[in-house]
Amino acid sequence: MLKGLSKAGIGTIDEKDFIRLASLHGFDAIDTDGTSLVTLIEENGLEQANALLQENHIKIGTFGLSVQWRTTEDEFKSGLKQLVAEAEAATALGCTSCITYILPSTDFNAAEFMAVATRRLRTCAQILGCFGIQLGLEFVGPHHLRTRWANPFIWDMNQTLSFIEAIGEKNVGLLVDSYHCYTNGMTNDDLTQLKAHQIVHVHINDAKDIPVEDLLDNDRLYPGEGVIDLVGFLLALKQVGYTGPVSQEILTQSPPIEYAEVLVKKSAELYQKLFKAAGM
Amino acid sequence: MLKGLSKAGIGTIDEKDFIRLASLHGFDAIDTDGTSLVTLIEENGLEQANALLQENHIKIGTFGLSVQWRTTEDEFKSGLKQLVAEAEAATALGCTSCITYILPSTDFNAAEFMAVATRRLRTCAQILGCFGIQLGLEFVGPHHLRTRWANPFIWDMNQTLSFIEAIGEKNVGLLVDSYHCYTNGMTNDDLTQLKAHQIVHVHINDAKDIPVEDLLDNDRLYPGEGVIDLVGFLLALKQVGYTGPVSQEILTQSPPIEYAEVLVKKSAELYQKLFKAAGM
Amino acid sequence: MLKGLSKAGIGTIDEKDFIRLASLHGFDAIDTDGTSLVTLIEENGLEQANALLQENHIKIGTFGLSVQWRTTEDEFKSGLKQLVAEAEAATALGCTSCITYILPSTDFNAAEFMAVATRRLRTCAQILGCFGIQLGLEFVGPHHLRTRWANPFIWDMNQTLSFIEAIGEKNVGLLVDSYHCYTNGMTNDDLTQLKAHQIVHVHINDAKDIPVEDLLDNDRLYPGEGVIDLVGFLLALKQVGYTGPVSQEILTQSPPIEYAEVLVKKSAELYQKLFKAAGM
Amino acid sequence: MLKGLSKAGIGTIDEKDFIRLASLHGFDAIDTDGTSLVTLIEENGLEQANALLQENHIKIGTFGLSVQWRTTEDEFKSGLKQLVAEAEAATALGCTSCITYILPSTDFNAAEFMAVATRRLRTCAQILGCFGIQLGLEFVGPHHLRTRWANPFIWDMNQTLSFIEAIGEKNVGLLVDSYHCYTNGMTNDDLTQLKAHQIVHVHINDAKDIPVEDLLDNDRLYPGEGVIDLVGFLLALKQVGYTGPVSQEILTQSPPIEYAEVLVKKSAELYQKLFKAAGM
Repeated sequence: MLKGLSKAGIGTIDEKDFIRLASLHGFDAIDTDGTSLVTLIEENGLEQANALLQENHIKIGTFGLSVQWRTTEDEFKSGLKQLVAEAEAATALGCTSCITYILPSTDFNAAEFMAVATRRLRTCAQILGCFGIQLGLEFVGPHHLRTRWANPFIWDMNQTLSFIEAIGEKNVGLLVDSYHCYTNGMTNDDLTQLKAHQIVHVHINDAKDIPVEDLLDNDRLYPGEGVIDLVGFLLALKQVGYTGPVSQEILTQSPPIEYAEVLVKKSAELYQKLFKAAGM
Repeated sequence: MLKGLSKAGIGTIDEKDFIRLASLHGFDAIDTDGTSLVTLIEENGLEQANALLQENHIKIGTFGLSVQWRTTEDEFKSGLKQLVAEAEAATALGCTSCITYILPSTDFNAAEFMAVATRRLRTCAQILGCFGIQLGLEFVGPHHLRTRWANPFIWDMNQTLSFIEAIGEKNVGLLVDSYHCYTNGMTNDDLTQLKAHQIVHVHINDAKDIPVEDLLDNDRLYPGEGVIDLVGFLLALKQVGYTGPVSQEILTQSPPIEYAEVLVKKSAELYQKLFKAAGM
Repeated sequence: MLKGLSKAGIGTIDEKDFIRLASLHGFDAIDTDGTSLVTLIEENGLEQANALLQENHIKIGTFGLSVQWRTTEDEFKSGLKQLVAEAEAATALGCTSCITYILPSTDFNAAEFMAVATRRLRTCAQILGCFGIQLGLEFVGPHHLRTRWANPFIWDMNQTLSFIEAIGEKNVGLLVDSYHCYTNGMTNDDLTQLKAHQIVHVHINDAKDIPVEDLLDNDRLYPGEGVIDLVGFLLALKQVGYTGPVSQEILTQSPPIEYAEVLVKKSAELYQKLFKAAGM
Repeated sequence: MLKGLSKAGIGTIDEKDFIRLASLHGFDAIDTDGTSLVTLIEENGLEQANALLQENHIKIGTFGLSVQWRTTEDEFKSGLKQLVAEAEAATALGCTSCITYILPSTDFNAAEFMAVATRRLRTCAQILGCFGIQLGLEFVGPHHLRTRWANPFIWDMNQTLSFIEAIGEKNVGLLVDSYHCYTNGMTNDDLTQLKAHQIVHVHINDAKDIPVEDLLDNDRLYPGEGVIDLVGFLLALKQVGYTGPVSQEILTQSPPIEYAEVLVKKSAELYQKLFKAAGM
């Protein structure tokens, strides 16, 4: 598995600085967005951009899906051109993964929205597939979001696997986030039912020691600071054969106040402790 | 368009008698179920079965999908072998259409059930497609069924078109039923937005003169006995270019008490009046 | 059916002049390429571009697929961004059809190229499908092209229907060209086997009175100047229910020497004669 | 990896005897055909059939696709009902893999046959997919078969991967046979380009020490008796992460003359030697 870092939990930082800082502290991969990838190539040229990654031994772990698939058909369609541009940039930088999250409730009729979302994400997957890129769907566990909008949607692994089957494209799989597994009451055994190719990306975050149903989506802890059995989580992923990035995504109620350097160093130490405990 | 007849509104009747009676009263097609088609061939041989249809100038308009796609995965899978058998029988008898209805509420999580149903109906459509058969999805309008089970599902034309796009197979289209259009508050203008190949089958039924929201699914009238503008309905279908069967399906709270002969004759007279009024 | 005009047979002409000239001589639609559509919007704004079309009572009949699906994977992928741009422009201008032709021989292993082409055209169809655009595949009949490259590929209607089924997307159909039908030895009866929604676009061209197997692809006559039964061709399309554009595409060995005005006028007269003979 | 055994190289033998004999000599899996699976359940009941497998520590490695996808449409369609029955039996016995081979030449137009085969194998894959079964496509390397029929088709790994992409279903992958890799001039390095989930099944056979282009498809040696680097082959599969069955399939010009007991014992000794040399 690759030690991955996203900016959530690190704060605002220039892309090139982010790459160097992640590298300095022993991370293997960074998660980013497609616009940053396009910009990285535009500003540096493809060769220099790839050289930057190679010198720092950093891979692009994944990028977020920029297409708006949750609102109107016009908004959806108007994002497809940018998706092609981002997929081109990602593949040129060796990145083979794109991710998006699924909100657990919706103001639309839930069944109709599932039908519409199935078609739209299929289109996104088809475009990404041309460029050899997988699409990872992230189920979102925190209970408060299940009633945040009018109608319940989906939030657990099996529902998301059904969604993936409805989409029906080869290159669609799961984004597994320890925080969402925990808030769903999933065990690490549940994880071992998966096959390696079903997991596109992994997020690793920790939770406060409060009742599971009270955990907020944007109140996460750094891995190892909370109560989730993250060693068991890593071992389950290893058993499945997952070898991709494991990236923290520390969503918090207010932006971090410490410097990025401090936060990356802290994250690195927590990762080292955790991976060591898992014998990796 | 073909004047079609289903057994709903006629009562229990032997298949061969049904064919002869429909023919005697000027109908062009009958709707039936797949088991009846398999049996018709088994009992008479394919040649005789086709001869019976030809002598009576009757086509098999459509047959109901026997696969159980609304409950468990085991029940779903255990019906596929029979589906192949029914599709083989149907195609051998010149029938190119199969239909199923969508209940407007469900005890399952609606979004998850939509994902599962999308996959299952795709499988059914793929098998039917091998035999050149289309699958028509019937949206169901009566208001009482929207709250009959715990969670709202889908009930109108646009939702069903989204469902069809999610399924993503070429041979899936709509079953348009005048009763469901009426209870949905659809206009005949709405119908004219369709293209001919989107309509797999048509049901024609009439409604009592009570508030639309109080109409029950199983309290229908014969075409022309009620308040629906069925002439406009037929003209809209004609404008679209639909040329397939238009079949009555008179669901009632108790079985009809009159003889089948009487009820077919009555239906035939109502059809003639209606088609004449529509200039067909 | 719409009287359509492509630039093949008319010569080099500015897009806006082409629209006005086509309109002046009673044509209903023009065929063009995607770049011209993007440019038309860029130079005039969408509103003005649509106003130009409406004032002249001209529709965009179709545009040629710009993606290179016949060569390398890199060339293929690098065209997808432009395809999205062209599809956006086309749909904004009310155009719902895109076309590409299939060469009847190839220097690649024919089976492998069919597999690759199936995947690539599926991707193109999926992108076009997002914008409500159909993709029409044109089979190419002239015999000399069947041995122009090392290995025979496909050139007739049934082969192309098999190709379309392999692609497996709803929005893919045929471009039917009278010249290719004629050089394939197809009858107008063969055409009537189709259903309306299987035909995405129609080309109408005429052939010299020489043996069919000697007809060159780029040696065509204007409709009515040659030996093809084009009245029968139009009647077959009418019987099928085709209502889209019928566009001439006069490929010749050297560019036309007469003025565009003269050639459009000549074409218009030939069309009028032909459509009148067909009772349209 | 599982040590697998097919009847090719063992001779005619009752299914239950085959299971016991394979077990006795330390094999983990047998390859069979779907009819045998259906019969096994019919004659013994499902419970007893599964008990037989469990007592003998034998898995059903794979079964051959019985649907005729290489000839007429009628033959193809008439096999689908049996496919459902075989898939039901296979899944009930814990088997998740079905295989078919691709002949490297054809009397049909190669491009058209590829289009037809793409559609037909997609249908088979869709049906198998309902039951959680993968379909493995076997490319066939021996040179003499490339000209056995009129037109070259496909015979190597990359062509077959293109075929799989054209089919476009998630559950289709490769059957990798050491004999076909060798006759194609593939290296074990080529194999390591694959990912585990792309390999549905593995055949292991050996080749005589004659020029590669002279090797006949039905003149194979038992693994370890010939010149193929089968240790490297196994190591490449291990590197990829393949964990399924590796089954011999010794096609010969005349049936084996020795008793099945002798041949299974001989095979077992050769397997043990080979797996030991590969450190497994």
